[in-house]
Amino acid sequence: MKKILILGAGLSSSSLIKYLLDHSKEHNWKIRVGDMSLEVAKRKVNNHENGEAVEFDVFNEQQRIEEIQNADVVISMLPARFHHLVAERCVEFGKNMVTASYVSKEVLALHDQAKEKGLMLLNEIGVDPGIDHMSAMKVINEIREKGGELLAFKSSTGGLVAPEFDNNPWNYKFTWNPRNVVVAGQSVAQYIDHGKYKYVPYNQLFKRTEKMSILDVGEFEMYPNRDSLSYRETYGLQDIPTLLRGTLRRPGYCAGWNVFVQIGATDDTYTIGHSENLTYREFINSFLPYNLEDTVEQKVCDFVGLEMESETMSRLKWLGIFEETKIGLKNATPAQILQKLLEEKWALGAEDKDIIVMQHQFDYSLNGKTKRITSSLVVRGKDQVHTAMAITVGTPVAIATKLFLTGVINQKGVIVPTMKDVYQPVLKELEEYGIVFIEKEIDLD
Amino acid sequence: MKKILILGAGLSSSSLIKYLLDHSKEHNWKIRVGDMSLEVAKRKVNNHENGEAVEFDVFNEQQRIEEIQNADVVISMLPARFHHLVAERCVEFGKNMVTASYVSKEVLALHDQAKEKGLMLLNEIGVDPGIDHMSAMKVINEIREKGGELLAFKSSTGGLVAPEFDNNPWNYKFTWNPRNVVVAGQSVAQYIDHGKYKYVPYNQLFKRTEKMSILDVGEFEMYPNRDSLSYRETYGLQDIPTLLRGTLRRPGYCAGWNVFVQIGATDDTYTIGHSENLTYREFINSFLPYNLEDTVEQKVCDFVGLEMESETMSRLKWLGIFEETKIGLKNATPAQILQKLLEEKWALGAEDKDIIVMQHQFDYSLNGKTKRITSSLVVRGKDQVHTAMAITVGTPVAIATKLFLTGVINQKGVIVPTMKDVYQPVLKELEEYGIVFIEKEIDLD
Repeated sequence: MKKILILGAGLSSSSLIKYLLDHSKEHNWKIRVGDMSLEVAKRKVNNHENGEAVEFDVFNEQQRIEEIQNADVVISMLPARFHHLVAERCVEFGKNMVTASYVSKEVLALHDQAKEKGLMLLNEIGVDPGIDHMSAMKVINEIREKGGELLAFKSSTGGLVAPEFDNNPWNYKFTWNPRNVVVAGQSVAQYIDHGKYKYVPYNQLFKRTEKMSILDVGEFEMYPNRDSLSYRETYGLQDIPTLLRGTLRRPGYCAGWNVFVQIGATDDTYTIGHSENLTYREFINSFLPYNLEDTVEQKVCDFVGLEMESETMSRLKWLGIFEETKIGLKNATPAQILQKLLEEKWALGAEDKDIIVMQHQFDYSLNGKTKRITSSLVVRGKDQVHTAMAITVGTPVAIATKLFLTGVINQKGVIVPTMKDVYQPVLKELEEYGIVFIEKEIDLD
Repeated sequence: MKKILILGAGLSSSSLIKYLLDHSKEHNWKIRVGDMSLEVAKRKVNNHENGEAVEFDVFNEQQRIEEIQNADVVISMLPARFHHLVAERCVEFGKNMVTASYVSKEVLALHDQAKEKGLMLLNEIGVDPGIDHMSAMKVINEIREKGGELLAFKSSTGGLVAPEFDNNPWNYKFTWNPRNVVVAGQSVAQYIDHGKYKYVPYNQLFKRTEKMSILDVGEFEMYPNRDSLSYRETYGLQDIPTLLRGTLRRPGYCAGWNVFVQIGATDDTYTIGHSENLTYREFINSFLPYNLEDTVEQKVCDFVGLEMESETMSRLKWLGIFEETKIGLKNATPAQILQKLLEEKWALGAEDKDIIVMQHQFDYSLNGKTKRITSSLVVRGKDQVHTAMAITVGTPVAIATKLFLTGVINQKGVIVPTMKDVYQPVLKELEEYGIVFIEKEIDLD
């Protein structure tokens, strides 16, 4: 009997825990689920005979040591900053680990030691990072194997409300951590375009969008992510002339969000001392010059260069930013104030479902011809527990854990799923769970 | 015989050291000047019989202790971050201290202890902070004494090239630390306008300017400083409806600088790995979208909304940012690259002189009438050693030190020169050194 310890039983662990419990009898697994809240852990285990729930406190070192010592493999779904606390103990006690998060410096530092002890610390095997790595590497390697030369790779992902529940003028609802959405992009975005390095400062970011259409779910726009350059190393594309990663939103979202960026309403570096007694209208006005003649609406239009009757202004008005409603948040940053308002307006309804969309675009030359492969994924949420986000984050983690325990995946050290013997079997099984990429190829010349 | 220890003999200490040496016989002072460079200290002491030069290393704790123990008053002209190292030892050994820098938290924490021991730690007695505090408090207290109510206080200062040496299209040369000019304004500017709090994000800062005219030196534009709100506390103006502090530049400068802000060329948070081999033209192009049809010049115009034939574009071209000249700076931030270029273009010539301009504007009501007092200062540099900056920073420090040693200033604790018994005698003597405010009053209704 193998013992799997899952740390963190929040929303993103739902599909992961269900998969492992569903497969536990067949493989003779014991699944122990630890969470800050015993209640949450119990709900996820759902009295399954091979499951066990436990209250887990990451700051309790003794408990951390004991739990890890008793496991064969540890899946850390804790907030990313805690992974290294788990990873260090895993290596110390000779245990394997799986996470859906980016490899941190602290975790990376364990590579040699883990390899020496014959352990696998598999990271970045959620959706983004995770499914993106695996699905991109599959096409990249296929192009290489037939002798093609990659000219451009663009990749973008978005978590959005499903089309049938998409009923607000921003075509957006929060399906993940709202704070990350509000402060997204606040450090420079870096990419490479036709061999030229490009740096996009925050105040340009939501203007530098590209349009794209994805399968049957319609039109999107993509704004550049913070760091595209590091993917050259990750994917072995050191000499590729164009590489850009981005985030997907529905058309019009970025122009609206850009207004908040331009006026300074997403700033998270200072607090507004009297924020509790301000109204949202006063909040917006505090970023605009004093002027008795113009309304706040007019000042926003003038400042950003908008027409009063534009769609962007309708979107802004719909959010209630011009209303005389009290903010009621003490000593808050602009970003926190904006988040409070958005959490009311962009909340997922009780019956709403989410989607994950991802699209890669590969341009390559082969035998003097230039071709483009588009590889696209749409995953729909099943319900409020098994959201598209939970399914796409948790399922690859679960599958990889199974493949590791059954000896199919047999890597050592601190790794990410860019090797064929990892991504191939994981992608194959993901298809059974509806995570299927649709590929199309066209000639560019 | 009183012993004065001056730590730091750089440019801003020139006029300070000269004043104290000039008055040393009359008052029987010994002036000991310490600097990292013995050569620099010697040059400033200039073989004066009451002067002594010494090589001083702020990180040498033993030397720091010994020097402070042997002094009666210590003047710290070290970089601001080192003052607290001096201040702590001053309080320990019962010595007084004078600095031209803002009171840091660490220095402020010494207040009670200094007061208990009967010591004075006088700070912010340079030009800005310093002369601004004293000249503003004089008018503020005069208005109060006659029963007026302050409605608005706006104050701005600039260090610029003197008009007769002003021969470039930016009407600007570096007369002080270039780095501070390049990264100026990168945190939010906060002020209050007609009772409304205003927050100006960096990307609006150089668009939110006010025009003003100062005495016989012509036209200026002012952009808001980072923190105007804290001056309410400093000046006892807790309820003033309008308070704004700013920095002065010549008209057109801010529109030009705004282009660098908008494209992201002043960013100091990341390095460009291949910067050494880039040209300035490529550097500018790296902030703009890839596009084979338009020149870099055209892309800048399109992005910022400029005409190719505009004055702003002439200013940018004059700087050489569109030239194919190699940057030659390894692994530099955008701000560092821009600074390198500007240091070549905005250098003060060997014969050039600088000016300091300062203007306060006070609106107040008295007996049902609204009036405005404008108080303006222009100080011209004498030569390359006694620059306007050196004169205005060093002279008030020197005068205050003399007035302290002669018993005219008699304050205890960590203080700034906002009390009448400090600013009145200092301002009076500053007039003998050509630091004279010209006041004008007009009726506003």
